[in-house]
Amino acid sequence: MSRKKHHNEERDDLPKLQIIPLGGLEQIGMNITAFRYEDSIIVVDLGMAFPTDDMLGVDLVIPDITYLLDNRELVKGFFITHGHEDHIGAIPYILNQLNAPLYATRLTMGIIEHKLEEHQLLESTTRQVVKFGDVIEAGAFSIEFIRTNHSIVDAAALAITSPAGTVVHTGDFKVDYTPVYGDPIDLQRFAEIGRRGVLALLCDSTNVERPGFTASEKTVGRTFDHLFQEYIDTRIIVATFASNVDRVQQIINSASKFGRKVVIEGRSMMTIMTIAQELQCIHIPENTIIDVEQLKNYPENKTVIITTGSQGENMAALSRMAAGQHKKITIKQGDTVILSSHPIPGNEKAVTHVINDLLLKGADVVSQDVHVSGHACQEDIKLIYTLVQPRYAVPVHGEYKHLIAQGKLAEELGIPAENIFILRSGDVLELSAKSAVVSKEKVPVGAIMVDGKGVGDVGNAVLRDRQHLSEDGIVIVAAMLDRETGELIGEPSIQSRGFVYMREADELIEDCMDLVIGELQHALDKGVRDGNKLRGILKDELGNFLWRRTERRPIIIPIIMDARA
Amino acid sequence: MSRKKHHNEERDDLPKLQIIPLGGLEQIGMNITAFRYEDSIIVVDLGMAFPTDDMLGVDLVIPDITYLLDNRELVKGFFITHGHEDHIGAIPYILNQLNAPLYATRLTMGIIEHKLEEHQLLESTTRQVVKFGDVIEAGAFSIEFIRTNHSIVDAAALAITSPAGTVVHTGDFKVDYTPVYGDPIDLQRFAEIGRRGVLALLCDSTNVERPGFTASEKTVGRTFDHLFQEYIDTRIIVATFASNVDRVQQIINSASKFGRKVVIEGRSMMTIMTIAQELQCIHIPENTIIDVEQLKNYPENKTVIITTGSQGENMAALSRMAAGQHKKITIKQGDTVILSSHPIPGNEKAVTHVINDLLLKGADVVSQDVHVSGHACQEDIKLIYTLVQPRYAVPVHGEYKHLIAQGKLAEELGIPAENIFILRSGDVLELSAKSAVVSKEKVPVGAIMVDGKGVGDVGNAVLRDRQHLSEDGIVIVAAMLDRETGELIGEPSIQSRGFVYMREADELIEDCMDLVIGELQHALDKGVRDGNKLRGILKDELGNFLWRRTERRPIIIPIIMDARA
Repeated sequence: MSRKKHHNEERDDLPKLQIIPLGGLEQIGMNITAFRYEDSIIVVDLGMAFPTDDMLGVDLVIPDITYLLDNRELVKGFFITHGHEDHIGAIPYILNQLNAPLYATRLTMGIIEHKLEEHQLLESTTRQVVKFGDVIEAGAFSIEFIRTNHSIVDAAALAITSPAGTVVHTGDFKVDYTPVYGDPIDLQRFAEIGRRGVLALLCDSTNVERPGFTASEKTVGRTFDHLFQEYIDTRIIVATFASNVDRVQQIINSASKFGRKVVIEGRSMMTIMTIAQELQCIHIPENTIIDVEQLKNYPENKTVIITTGSQGENMAALSRMAAGQHKKITIKQGDTVILSSHPIPGNEKAVTHVINDLLLKGADVVSQDVHVSGHACQEDIKLIYTLVQPRYAVPVHGEYKHLIAQGKLAEELGIPAENIFILRSGDVLELSAKSAVVSKEKVPVGAIMVDGKGVGDVGNAVLRDRQHLSEDGIVIVAAMLDRETGELIGEPSIQSRGFVYMREADELIEDCMDLVIGELQHALDKGVRDGNKLRGILKDELGNFLWRRTERRPIIIPIIMDARA
Repeated sequence: MSRKKHHNEERDDLPKLQIIPLGGLEQIGMNITAFRYEDSIIVVDLGMAFPTDDMLGVDLVIPDITYLLDNRELVKGFFITHGHEDHIGAIPYILNQLNAPLYATRLTMGIIEHKLEEHQLLESTTRQVVKFGDVIEAGAFSIEFIRTNHSIVDAAALAITSPAGTVVHTGDFKVDYTPVYGDPIDLQRFAEIGRRGVLALLCDSTNVERPGFTASEKTVGRTFDHLFQEYIDTRIIVATFASNVDRVQQIINSASKFGRKVVIEGRSMMTIMTIAQELQCIHIPENTIIDVEQLKNYPENKTVIITTGSQGENMAALSRMAAGQHKKITIKQGDTVILSSHPIPGNEKAVTHVINDLLLKGADVVSQDVHVSGHACQEDIKLIYTLVQPRYAVPVHGEYKHLIAQGKLAEELGIPAENIFILRSGDVLELSAKSAVVSKEKVPVGAIMVDGKGVGDVGNAVLRDRQHLSEDGIVIVAAMLDRETGELIGEPSIQSRGFVYMREADELIEDCMDLVIGELQHALDKGVRDGNKLRGILKDELGNFLWRRTERRPIIIPIIMDARA
């Protein structure tokens, strides 16, 4: 397997297709890949990532698109595979810097348009809703959208053809022979394109560590029917992903069978369901949905609440219910709460916390086996490789360990090790029918942090300070002096935040005050007048003193003001 | 199942045993339970907990022992079940407040003594090393130590007998018919005590959600042999829990079979292994252990490095190796790294991060099925219940969901629901041969945060500030004025930390300065002189301004100094 090695095959003169991942290969999230053929660039997905634990206070992360900005005239369009945030979340931020036409399927575009509206970008953005089978011409490229299945409706793979050959990008996919909405993944089309000859396959790696096949979404529907039968006497609350239209459809189906009214609770879920209903991606029987205010008009065992927060997210509806902070829904003895989800790695503790809170309030919690994944497992991935039969394999959408694992799988399927490329964001893979080379040149990539209105104004220095502040707090000492006489004026001011509870630290504060006055007076008496020097003395002496007393190292901010200024 | 309900059985006049959990029932960690019979109190375990994610900057958490301090004359002794931090970590902090004799088995006491030495408490503490089968008399209690198995050698259950009857506390345990060191759990003794009649069973709940039996530690040894055979040509690095003596023993056994030298790397593991060797709990063949400096003298495939960091802990040896920051060991292409552990809930992301880093450096990583748990699964728990046949069941050692799950298991085993008590820390369960009642009175409990030298000086106000600082940072404005003339003296000083990168925010800072000068001058012109009022104006106006500009809300510290002071 080629882990970023440079191939020394003889140079060929054939025109080259460049595949340039600008994100998505270091983590699950922030998917964005550029394809370049001579003077044409197209971009697949414009995703965001959630901040990592060390990005304190950061709201979201978007990719650095310097490469695209440097070649802005060449960018022919943005092609979006599906409507999840890790594929569309950066759209408003990127369109603000670089306007190019957007192409996506119906529901995907519906969700994108809602986002553009929020950012006042709807009017200025050229958009085209694409049907499966449609082929878009964009510069030297023609791009075909192929139907797949995923945990959101209208997900697409892309067959990207340039004079150098065809590349298939699966997007996020699973193989569902019995999907809830629409048709199964268009395996015939994958086969046809494969038969015609495919240069490279960029395939989803998320579940590559899981053996076997991913179960059909419909199996969850049967589980709901069983659960609704089992808990026929209680109120039922189901938490799931806000964007999983098919899941919500199936909960509504079960509710309808059992004569229950349905409340949808949680802003993001409401938004997506409204869009899905407008686009007829979900079928809601008349008189099924009620407003949360109407709950009290029905017997409890004739109601279902579908809600967000299945990942234990702090501010989501279910967490607020579990914490007793939801304004309209109070969990109580006898309620049944179904978590129709599986914790995303990193969320396990938060989910468990919510479950414990729900149990403490007397609810029954069902959280096992009420979910199927939206991503292909090993056998599904093997199926796609075998239909497409690419010359080169480029695993995408995963952490490094997932990419490596898919590389091994591809090798088992007979793809020569030297034709498997484990890329890093910023790599440029140059392909022709004869050769594949990872260029020595990299393009700039990175994660730009968005905090409030600020895009990129929080950098490592600010994060380091936030980390330091979060661990040890800050102590501020302000003193006023008369530079001419060398006298201190009044008493210095000492304040702290996040260091110790000041009201119970009288003695420590008094000792600090003595130290500050002593050190300053001593320096002034020796004729020191320079502000920087005085600040340096305060910082060092106070820092050492506080370490000895508390074994903590707060940030120390010394302020020296000169009354003669 | 009785979830904190108060039983209304007729009051009996028999003497009462009180079981008072002071910690350990809200989380896994901080285990401490008091048992009181009239004027005698004994305490089982003095554990610490790791800080939760919201306890920013906190090093560890210890239990509030106000109840014990209020009854200090009655406390007859501390009985420790085994040497893990969640059972012994609070010992130095508690002994500093309340000195009573410590009882523990050999390795447990060895680890405790090391801790006491570090805190200069060894001389002042009465200690007794207990053998399995020994019975300690302590006030009205007699306490027998019963051999169990766990992921650390010398773990014990306790049979606590008072005139009210016998209570069995399992400690943390598993059933291992073929342990690596010492004998299997003393099931016969559990049976004998059960036959004699047991009032209550306090049983470990950690793995109660897992069906079946927990595999023997010895099965991991066979896995190591297979792996050492498979990776016979490479260097091997094995990460595991620092205190798992048996695991280290088995790695050494495999190393010895395959003629490899062993380096032990990681301070905490070194400490425990030194103690274990002194106490002959581990057998290390001569000429097996080498110093890390000697690694270079041996062929790589003739060495094994056993190390800490299997949970992805930031500062542990494996994480430093993975990040390329370990001073003496550099991971390289061809190394084999075995994670002999399973991520503790909450650590999944950190562990994955380490795995990705190791793969990126070219190592092979083996992390599946090289570990067995130290806690009893469902069938083991059923076995203990069936041997002990308690009248009352009190699940311990688990989150609420685990306690509830063990309660259900106990019910399946035929214990009447009203005899099963899901307690909370601070509850007082009063037992006699005739009745069991959760008292309406609670005892004070809580989590005391330790940060550096400070015990309990970081409270909620400080944590709130740390949270706020970590998200939005701090802005400090200091201005000097002449209160008599109402004039500003010099230019105010504006500084920030963790807010924006100041050097790139010139315009924002300038606008802040204009605002501060403008608002102050305006207030001074109107005759405002009061420091509090001026500070209030600065805080409000600057806060609003910064929110409008950045959508962030840094903490704002206004300082007003009067040159006439």
